[in-house]
Amino acid sequence: MIIPINLGEKSYEIVLERGAIGKAGRLLGVSGDRKVLIVTDSGVPEEYVDAVARSFKKKNIFIFPQGEESKNFETYRQICETLMDLSYTRKDAVVAVGGGVTGDMAGFAAATYMRGIDFYNIPTTLLSQVDSSIGGKTAIDVGKIKNIIGAFHQPKKVIIDPDVLSTLTERHFINGLAEALKAGIIMDAKLFEIFEKGEAKERIDEVIERSLMVKKKVVEEDEKETGLRKVLNFGHTIGHGIEASVPFGELYHGECVALGMIPVCGDKIKSRVISAIEKTGLPISHPIDKESVRKALSHDKKSDSEGITAVICNEIGTFEFVNTSTDELMKLI
Amino acid sequence: MIIPINLGEKSYEIVLERGAIGKAGRLLGVSGDRKVLIVTDSGVPEEYVDAVARSFKKKNIFIFPQGEESKNFETYRQICETLMDLSYTRKDAVVAVGGGVTGDMAGFAAATYMRGIDFYNIPTTLLSQVDSSIGGKTAIDVGKIKNIIGAFHQPKKVIIDPDVLSTLTERHFINGLAEALKAGIIMDAKLFEIFEKGEAKERIDEVIERSLMVKKKVVEEDEKETGLRKVLNFGHTIGHGIEASVPFGELYHGECVALGMIPVCGDKIKSRVISAIEKTGLPISHPIDKESVRKALSHDKKSDSEGITAVICNEIGTFEFVNTSTDELMKLI
Repeated sequence: MIIPINLGEKSYEIVLERGAIGKAGRLLGVSGDRKVLIVTDSGVPEEYVDAVARSFKKKNIFIFPQGEESKNFETYRQICETLMDLSYTRKDAVVAVGGGVTGDMAGFAAATYMRGIDFYNIPTTLLSQVDSSIGGKTAIDVGKIKNIIGAFHQPKKVIIDPDVLSTLTERHFINGLAEALKAGIIMDAKLFEIFEKGEAKERIDEVIERSLMVKKKVVEEDEKETGLRKVLNFGHTIGHGIEASVPFGELYHGECVALGMIPVCGDKIKSRVISAIEKTGLPISHPIDKESVRKALSHDKKSDSEGITAVICNEIGTFEFVNTSTDELMKLI
Repeated sequence: MIIPINLGEKSYEIVLERGAIGKAGRLLGVSGDRKVLIVTDSGVPEEYVDAVARSFKKKNIFIFPQGEESKNFETYRQICETLMDLSYTRKDAVVAVGGGVTGDMAGFAAATYMRGIDFYNIPTTLLSQVDSSIGGKTAIDVGKIKNIIGAFHQPKKVIIDPDVLSTLTERHFINGLAEALKAGIIMDAKLFEIFEKGEAKERIDEVIERSLMVKKKVVEEDEKETGLRKVLNFGHTIGHGIEASVPFGELYHGECVALGMIPVCGDKIKSRVISAIEKTGLPISHPIDKESVRKALSHDKKSDSEGITAVICNEIGTFEFVNTSTDELMKLI
């Protein structure tokens, strides 16, 4: 199926289709005389990268070591220098094949190389398929502060092929479900019910589609996160704080989001949410260093001198924005 | 005087006023509870930085070593890390005080920190006052390739105070006149006549104002350089090639632009242009290594697989776009 994202002259389409990865060149509509730099990481199965690469006439491949540790100035700089050394022009393009780290960083390189060239995204993890590949947020981390440097740069097209999920580890797959569960809690009660029944895995195509529809609705209304889009940060403010407070890789992003959602759910729904998180296989508790969490919260992009705008949920499928402070948030944890 | 730049929701004003620098905080309209990072370089007289700094309540100052060599990934990264270490939020701002290098790099940091915070520009060189401070182009260099990484990020306001030009060296002042002369050649015959009469220095306020009006007209019509704005590259394609082919600092940017304009002027006007360049005190010839120039041209952002769009001038105050190639351009030199 085709899901159009309507953003005026920055509109684009998401192709959601099993087996789509082998037809990437044609589906993305990149003409033969344009060069594409395929940016991918060492964790992406070679067969996917090869399938994508075969479908383009003029291509180069840039592979970086898998993991959030790579999402830094140095790798970003290497991608830019590769584009430069290979004489890529404004008419050429970057294609990301991988998870959120790959898409965010390749997207930031595309956003800034020659002040912006075309970017295409082929997310290969569940997390990036349901969330990070849509919406045009690109970024790198600095130290432990996630996504502190970046740009809004909408992709020209996104290809989502659920077939590629078969090679994900169980933990990575479950990790990705966290963002879909989030979408359900705040904006789609029917999506939440799939999780509540413990059917997310069997009904994954439906889960992906419903998550994309939530994201579409939010992004179309608020491309640059000046208002509504902040709702997608549900569970992320505390989640990012937790993520920054533990050693790299100890917890996955989705696991931190799951942990971060619990404190911001109202009493009326908290036990249902905790049960859904457990059924999904996500953690409901983890030992943390509160001081590190507090420090990370103070660097949050959503915080300013007046405090932090937090998203809370008191009824499944709805949300509220609340002005709060680091101290108030810490009390909830 | 106030010159409005009309770009829809990205509109802003240029304040052109002698003595304006001392009133920066008030003129920029930055409220007292916002923090500003003043980014400047070691070549900017301390008195200007102090005057600006005094006018803000909450401020920090970042100083980097003067010169194009500083316009790189490392300095950009340091500015970003400074913003991060001082816990700047999306509501805070960056203020550049300096020439084109400072404005371009501070602007790029503002464009990408937290995916974009407010940017204010106080250009202190003639070159940046008449050209680079207007139009939202931000960038850094990679190696010898100028402005290869960057973003479009419009300032919120620009303050131009001709009084600060009094401390520029003669060579820096003349360097800045090159961009004004360019504006005259392609779009303002009356501005060109000021140069032809050798009166640019005495009539500098008029030169600045007329140059800004040319730039305003072009930028308003084509913010992101998809069409008309390429006219501002008049003299720059070959100029950048020359700039990249000589040791850093041997020639200033404006001097390279002056040299780069001569080959793209038609026979009918070439001698008038050469005479105006000489009267301005800019170079009309320089020993260069043609192979280095050719190599640099192939990296030009204006080039692609189909060639380079060059701007040529056959009559003062007018211009034409011509599709050409690196080889054809090299023949003109």
